[in-house]
Amino acid sequence: MRQSQLFGKTTRQDPADEVAVNAKLLQRGGFINKTMAGVYDYLPLGFRVLKNIETIIRDEIDAIGGQELFLSALQPKDRWEKTGRWKTLEEIMYQFKDHSGRDMGLGATHEEALAEIALGSVFSYKDLPLAVYQIQTKFRDEPRAKSGLIRGREFLMKDLYSFHRDEDDLAKFYDKADEAYRKIFKRCGLTVYVTEASGGTFTKQFTHEYQVLSEAGEDWTLYCSACGYAQNKEISVLKEGDDCPKCKKEKMKMGRSIEVGNIFKLGTKFSEAFGLMYSDEKGEKHPVCMGSYGIGPGRLLGTIVEVNHDEKGIIWPEHIAPCAVHIIELPAKKGEESKAGDIKKAAEKLYEELLAENIPVLYDDRADKSAGEKFADADLIGISWRVVVSQKTLEQEGFEIKKRSEKEPLIASSKELLRMLGVSPKRSKRKTATEKAKDAEDAKKALLIDKALLKDEQKKDNP
Amino acid sequence: MRQSQLFGKTTRQDPADEVAVNAKLLQRGGFINKTMAGVYDYLPLGFRVLKNIETIIRDEIDAIGGQELFLSALQPKDRWEKTGRWKTLEEIMYQFKDHSGRDMGLGATHEEALAEIALGSVFSYKDLPLAVYQIQTKFRDEPRAKSGLIRGREFLMKDLYSFHRDEDDLAKFYDKADEAYRKIFKRCGLTVYVTEASGGTFTKQFTHEYQVLSEAGEDWTLYCSACGYAQNKEISVLKEGDDCPKCKKEKMKMGRSIEVGNIFKLGTKFSEAFGLMYSDEKGEKHPVCMGSYGIGPGRLLGTIVEVNHDEKGIIWPEHIAPCAVHIIELPAKKGEESKAGDIKKAAEKLYEELLAENIPVLYDDRADKSAGEKFADADLIGISWRVVVSQKTLEQEGFEIKKRSEKEPLIASSKELLRMLGVSPKRSKRKTATEKAKDAEDAKKALLIDKALLKDEQKKDNP
Repeated sequence: MRQSQLFGKTTRQDPADEVAVNAKLLQRGGFINKTMAGVYDYLPLGFRVLKNIETIIRDEIDAIGGQELFLSALQPKDRWEKTGRWKTLEEIMYQFKDHSGRDMGLGATHEEALAEIALGSVFSYKDLPLAVYQIQTKFRDEPRAKSGLIRGREFLMKDLYSFHRDEDDLAKFYDKADEAYRKIFKRCGLTVYVTEASGGTFTKQFTHEYQVLSEAGEDWTLYCSACGYAQNKEISVLKEGDDCPKCKKEKMKMGRSIEVGNIFKLGTKFSEAFGLMYSDEKGEKHPVCMGSYGIGPGRLLGTIVEVNHDEKGIIWPEHIAPCAVHIIELPAKKGEESKAGDIKKAAEKLYEELLAENIPVLYDDRADKSAGEKFADADLIGISWRVVVSQKTLEQEGFEIKKRSEKEPLIASSKELLRMLGVSPKRSKRKTATEKAKDAEDAKKALLIDKALLKDEQKKDNP
Repeated sequence: MRQSQLFGKTTRQDPADEVAVNAKLLQRGGFINKTMAGVYDYLPLGFRVLKNIETIIRDEIDAIGGQELFLSALQPKDRWEKTGRWKTLEEIMYQFKDHSGRDMGLGATHEEALAEIALGSVFSYKDLPLAVYQIQTKFRDEPRAKSGLIRGREFLMKDLYSFHRDEDDLAKFYDKADEAYRKIFKRCGLTVYVTEASGGTFTKQFTHEYQVLSEAGEDWTLYCSACGYAQNKEISVLKEGDDCPKCKKEKMKMGRSIEVGNIFKLGTKFSEAFGLMYSDEKGEKHPVCMGSYGIGPGRLLGTIVEVNHDEKGIIWPEHIAPCAVHIIELPAKKGEESKAGDIKKAAEKLYEELLAENIPVLYDDRADKSAGEKFADADLIGISWRVVVSQKTLEQEGFEIKKRSEKEPLIASSKELLRMLGVSPKRSKRKTATEKAKDAEDAKKALLIDKALLKDEQKKDNP
């Protein structure tokens, strides 16, 4: 991706109407645009980060057997009246009439939808357990939306729903989901405290939240830094300075935190409302047990920025960054402008080499920016590997390579850079779809010819 | 994917409230669920088809330089008042007040949004041309929504927007977009007629539509089957039976058709409304020229079903199907139930072999279904390659392989099947992310050690 052609530009000034660090840095870096309070657009750089996060989520949720689907945002009122949530959620749900006068809502969550849709999929104990998920837009008219991507009115959610024959089976899957969640946050470079918390409007049981310590958070978490035991302050009987009730080694601390995920045992509340029953081995009917599990990829993105930045900008974890490498082509020195061509040539060559290895690259090819502006932008955008191509590096016969998280650069060749990025130099080229299709066609033809010859042979043998 | 665990089940009965073939077959096959008229949910099988279509679209739009982003569905009224479309689109736009009394709309399209957001990206001629796109949900309260996925009230749209310094540059990109669109439809297995049409509420210029002949269509297209020349009946002065004005070889025919895409030259209508200007080489300001280009992935999916089915079910084009292979494990013959274990073993082995090659497989492992039910479901679901594992195929030492689009099966080994699917047997295993990360770490360490040794060497040489 050539920076000269990138949609979304960096700015030096903080946006006037934002208090949250993630909202400021992401807008200044050209990752997002603000359409209105709590409603953001992902520009190409932000979209790439989002996709990286979503890929991690899909990986781990697929690994525990989640089947991906995609449900509608438009919701009919009658569906929500079955659980009484048309009324209990009315303060945050967008509710309106369509042109024919029918009451509609925008999905703030999808428990009702899934309980209803599962009526066509769950009949017998043989159909259970099941787990389905989506990455889809939710709408909640939050009274306060001042935390950037951390609390939006329109936001992406990975919502997973599971269906079970009983509480035991639900508990087993709940533990699996917990493990998947821990892996997701770890791969996103986040340290989470898993806290017990209240179920809100979903359930009266305790639930679990994944909290990341950050001043930008809206929650308070009591935690033990020795063993990781934690509780949401709202439900805790402990207070700061108490001994950790679990490991007894450390005093409990309290910190602001961001809830990046939560998991709920819903029991039979939703299945009973929709008549979602299954027949057991004896033909007896029982309500299905459900669980629901949420992560907001956008909130996760905002949280990663909150805990990974310095005064210059964002410091993306390596697998989250919009690109793996940021090539910075510097202008030639004053009075030696004739060298600019050589610098560009070397930068273009490196760019092509990396792209040929399928490494996503942001290439700062802008001709009208000073070295200072380019370095400032690179620090703001925060891609993990910065590779400078300049008159100096040409003389050194290598590139100046620096990690965003480190201070000291080193000089290395493109081959060494590739090794650092984990690319083995002689990777075999993958076949294109067209090549594969051609192979398939050839193979089929060959097989048909074989069969025909075989028939001829057989005819000869048995005339 | 094991069919016994699949969310979404096949049904024999047509849904009572549908007239469109795509809506009937897709619901019967377990691809989609209907939440209300014009609002459908994609279940796991349907979601996979959708992703395949989206992948083709992304490929081709990326190839012409499109940068992907993701904009909000919630839209503030003032943005739409700038072009007057808050009023002109009010009959199909969902418009309502939020909890604070502010007027909001759901995006029916995104020209206004992009023209406004581009204010932060387009300043000079150096910033042009630009092309951005998204695959995102649109909302239109259509008075008639009886065509299944072909006309939805909530639907996915790939909308591409381009920005140019003048009409000439717009025309160049318009031609590129046209080529990309033709490739997309071809890869989806569709024959399209590119017709001239009216610009509707978007523009007064002629635009181009991509029409697929189908009785399910809501448009009428006049076309020449010899040279492909076509016009939307709405704007045509030709009538059925006239000589083709272009090739003069054939008489014009008229047929019902589905519009699967359209491309618009917007000119400066939107940029003028938002003050989207660029400075030319002399510092003079001009309004930006825009284009907009739409394809509905869901409508495309519905259209593919309309033109690819028989009385038994769907016949997916090979690269669109939810899986590449449908393995059918048949029950053992009556009285020889002891053979069931061998059949299952062979089916499981084949399933694992194909998965190991990253081939997506639907495996009908259901123990309580007859051969007849399984074959009927396979025909309904319409996956291109059906592979039967049965007592008979065990005896023949091969699998019974049949394409959904063909009549005659053939017997082949798993190796031969893989060749037919385009997999060369000795493909090298790709490295996992962890292995790559480890390699990168090792490479970096090695480099640092090299550097340190080098320094030591240098010290020795120059003490």
